Amino acid sequence: MSQYIYKPALFVLQIMKILKNSVCAVKGIKAAGKFVGIKSASKKKDLAIIYSEKLCNAAAMYTKNHVKGAPLYVTEEHLKNGKAQAAIVSSGIANVCTGKKGIEDAKEMCSLAAKELGLKKDDVLVASTGLIGAYLPMDVIKKGIQGIKNELSNDSSNAAEAILTTDNFKKEIAVQVDNITIGAICKGAGMIHPNMATMLCFIFTDADFSSLRLKKMLKKSVDKSFNMISVDMDTSTSDMAVLMANGLAGKISEDKFQKALDFVCVELAKMVAVDGEGATKLIEVDVINAKSEAEAKLLAKAVITSNLVKAACFGNDPNWGRIMSAIGCSGVKFKEDKVDIYFNDKSLVKGGKAASFDPNEVSKSMKTEKLIIKIDLNEGKGNGTAWGCDLTFDYVKINAHYHT
Amino acid sequence: MSQYIYKPALFVLQIMKILKNSVCAVKGIKAAGKFVGIKSASKKKDLAIIYSEKLCNAAAMYTKNHVKGAPLYVTEEHLKNGKAQAAIVSSGIANVCTGKKGIEDAKEMCSLAAKELGLKKDDVLVASTGLIGAYLPMDVIKKGIQGIKNELSNDSSNAAEAILTTDNFKKEIAVQVDNITIGAICKGAGMIHPNMATMLCFIFTDADFSSLRLKKMLKKSVDKSFNMISVDMDTSTSDMAVLMANGLAGKISEDKFQKALDFVCVELAKMVAVDGEGATKLIEVDVINAKSEAEAKLLAKAVITSNLVKAACFGNDPNWGRIMSAIGCSGVKFKEDKVDIYFNDKSLVKGGKAASFDPNEVSKSMKTEKLIIKIDLNEGKGNGTAWGCDLTFDYVKINAHYHT
Repeated sequence: MSQYIYKPALFVLQIMKILKNSVCAVKGIKAAGKFVGIKSASKKKDLAIIYSEKLCNAAAMYTKNHVKGAPLYVTEEHLKNGKAQAAIVSSGIANVCTGKKGIEDAKEMCSLAAKELGLKKDDVLVASTGLIGAYLPMDVIKKGIQGIKNELSNDSSNAAEAILTTDNFKKEIAVQVDNITIGAICKGAGMIHPNMATMLCFIFTDADFSSLRLKKMLKKSVDKSFNMISVDMDTSTSDMAVLMANGLAGKISEDKFQKALDFVCVELAKMVAVDGEGATKLIEVDVINAKSEAEAKLLAKAVITSNLVKAACFGNDPNWGRIMSAIGCSGVKFKEDKVDIYFNDKSLVKGGKAASFDPNEVSKSMKTEKLIIKIDLNEGKGNGTAWGCDLTFDYVKINAHYHT
Repeated sequence: MSQYIYKPALFVLQIMKILKNSVCAVKGIKAAGKFVGIKSASKKKDLAIIYSEKLCNAAAMYTKNHVKGAPLYVTEEHLKNGKAQAAIVSSGIANVCTGKKGIEDAKEMCSLAAKELGLKKDDVLVASTGLIGAYLPMDVIKKGIQGIKNELSNDSSNAAEAILTTDNFKKEIAVQVDNITIGAICKGAGMIHPNMATMLCFIFTDADFSSLRLKKMLKKSVDKSFNMISVDMDTSTSDMAVLMANGLAGKISEDKFQKALDFVCVELAKMVAVDGEGATKLIEVDVINAKSEAEAKLLAKAVITSNLVKAACFGNDPNWGRIMSAIGCSGVKFKEDKVDIYFNDKSLVKGGKAASFDPNEVSKSMKTEKLIIKIDLNEGKGNGTAWGCDLTFDYVKINAHYHT
C-alpha cells in the first residue's frame, strides 16, 4: 500500500490528542535528514540525526537474532549508563557481518556526530539499516555529518524519510496526554526484509522518567505491538526500538504514559505491517477467549505468519481450513469443537465445523484495505491481537531480485 | 517441476538395487486405483487400495498438528495391535474438521474395504487427503469399493496416481537389498498445502520385523527425511507415514534395512519438496561441522523455511545475507566469524564476511534444477541436511485462488 491512515478509536481520542510532526512535536527535540551518498544509485535521503536539547534518560530493545549488526553493539554500550542525547541513523547499508571494522565505523559515526553537536560520544546512539555484508562508505558519511547541526529544525519529515529503505511511506506519529508529548518515527516493511535491517523505531518524549521505568514501559509496549507483527518470523539482524525522555514537560502517571506509548507503538507496528513488500491489505488477527493471554498471542501469531493464510487473503479466499490448520500447529492445546471463526464479522466456522455462509459474499467483503480475522476459542478470558499483510505476486517479485 | 528423476549416489547402488513398480515390487503386495467420484470436477483418480496377501506387522507416524483428520484417529486405533493387511486412501477431500460424522465415515471406509477383501475391519488402515471441512461423499465411495478386489494387480501406478491431489507427478520408489524389497508410494507438495492434507506415505516390505522394530526404524528414517523438508512449517492436519511388513522374504539385518529405508524416505521427501507448488528447483541445505547433529538440523531447517531465502533462490540471487540472518534466528548459538557459506560449491562467505566472488557467475550457476547451499560452522562434527523448494509467482497464484 502506498500509505496508511490510522483511525484512532474513540477511547483514544478521549484521553489523548493526535499531533503532527512526530518527534519534533516533543519539547526540545530537533531533527535533520539528508542525502550524503550511501544510496548512491537512488540519491534518496540516507542520513538522519535526532537531537535533544537536554540529556535524556533512555532505554532500548534489540533484535533477538544471534547475528547482530555492529551499531547494536555500540548503542548497547552507550546506553549502559541509561543516558543519551542524540541518535544518528544511516540507511542503505546495514553494517552487519562486517567484523571489527564494522564496530569501528559505528563508533566513528557516534564520535563524528558528538563532535558536531558538542556532546560526549557515549551520549550518541547509532543505527544503520540496509544491505547486509557491505561496509559503510565512511568518507561520505563524515562529509555528510559536517555542518548537520545547522540543518537541525523543528520539522521531522526529512529525518523520517532518511531512515527508510524499501518502505513506501514515512511512519510518523505524535500524541499529547495532559502536558506531555510522545513522538516517534519508524521504518520497516513487515517480516519481509531482514537483509534490509527490518525495523527501527525512535521514540522521544518530554516526560520525566528514569531509564529503568522507560525500559519497563518500552518492553510492555513492544510486546503488544512490534512483537505482534509478522516481523518475528524473520527477525532482522538490526531491529531496534529506542525510547528517550528529556523530562522537559515534567511528570505524568505511569499508567497514562503506558497507554499513550502502547497506542504509539501499535499504530507504528500496523504501519510497518501494512507496508510489507507487495502488500495490498492489513490483516488483523484477534484471538479471544483463549485459556490465557500468552496462548491467545501464540495462536494469533501462528495465523498471521502462515503463508497459506496470507496467500488466501490476497486472493480474497475465505479458506478457513488454513486457519484451523495454522492454529493446530501453534503448539497450543484447545478444544477443536469450540472454535468459532469470523472474517470481517461474518461467521465461517461454528463449533469447529463449517458454518453456513455464502463464499462469494464473504469473498467480496474481504476486498478491503483491512481484513479482521476473529477466532473465538470459547474456553477462557485470554485475548491477543497480531497484525500482518497478505502474500502477493509483488512480494515474490521484490524479494527474488532485490540483491543483484 | 513436472517430474523428478533421482540419481542415487554410487554407495547406494553398491548396496541396493533400484526396482520399478514401487509397492507392487514387494512380495505379496497388490494395488488398485480408480476414479469413484470424489474429484467430480477433474475426474481424476481418487481412491486407492493397497493389499498384502499376508497379515503384516505395521507401524505409523502422524502429524503433530493439534487439529487432526478423522482418518488418523481411526488408523491409530486400528494399529493398536501392530497389525494391518490393507490400506484404503481417498483423495479430494481430507475429512478434517468433520466431527463425529467424519469418524464414522472413516470407519465405514475400513468396514467396506474389509468386507470386499475378506479381512477384519481393524486390519484396514485409512487415509484421506484434500480439502478441509467438507464431508466425504460416502455414496460414491461405497459404490467405488464394490468389486475393487478384482481390480487389484501387480501394477502400482493407478494407486500411486489415485492418492495425489495438486501433485504434478507420481512419487514411487522401490529398492532391493539382499533378498528383501522395500516399495513405497507417497503424495504431497512441500510445505505448501496443509489444507490439501500435505503428506501421505505408504511403505511396504517383505522383510520380517516386529511392529516395535518397524516403529523404531520408521521414526529414524522420517526424522532424516520427511521431518527435514519444509513441510514442517505448516504441518498438515493429515500427515501420515505407514510402514507395513509381511515377512514373505524373510529376515535381514536391521542395519541394512535401516539404510535402505532411509534412502527410500529421503528420495520420496525430495520428490515432495521439489513438487512444492510453483517450485522451479530443489534446494538442499547442508549444514556441516556444527556443535551437534541436533543443532545442524535446526540451522538447516531455519534456512530452508525462510521465505526470503526461497525467493532469492527463485531469482538466482546469491543473497547470502539472508542465510546469515536465517541461521541467526534459529535459536542456535554459533561463532559468527567462523561461518563459511557456499552456493553450489562456490564460496560466498568466509569467516562470517563476504568472500571475493563474482555475483553474476554465482547467479548463473544457480540456474539449475538443484541448488546446494552449504554452511560450514567450523565448530564441531554435527551435520544435517534439509530440502525445500523456491518461492515463486506460481506459489502465490495457486494458493491465492485454490479454494473458491
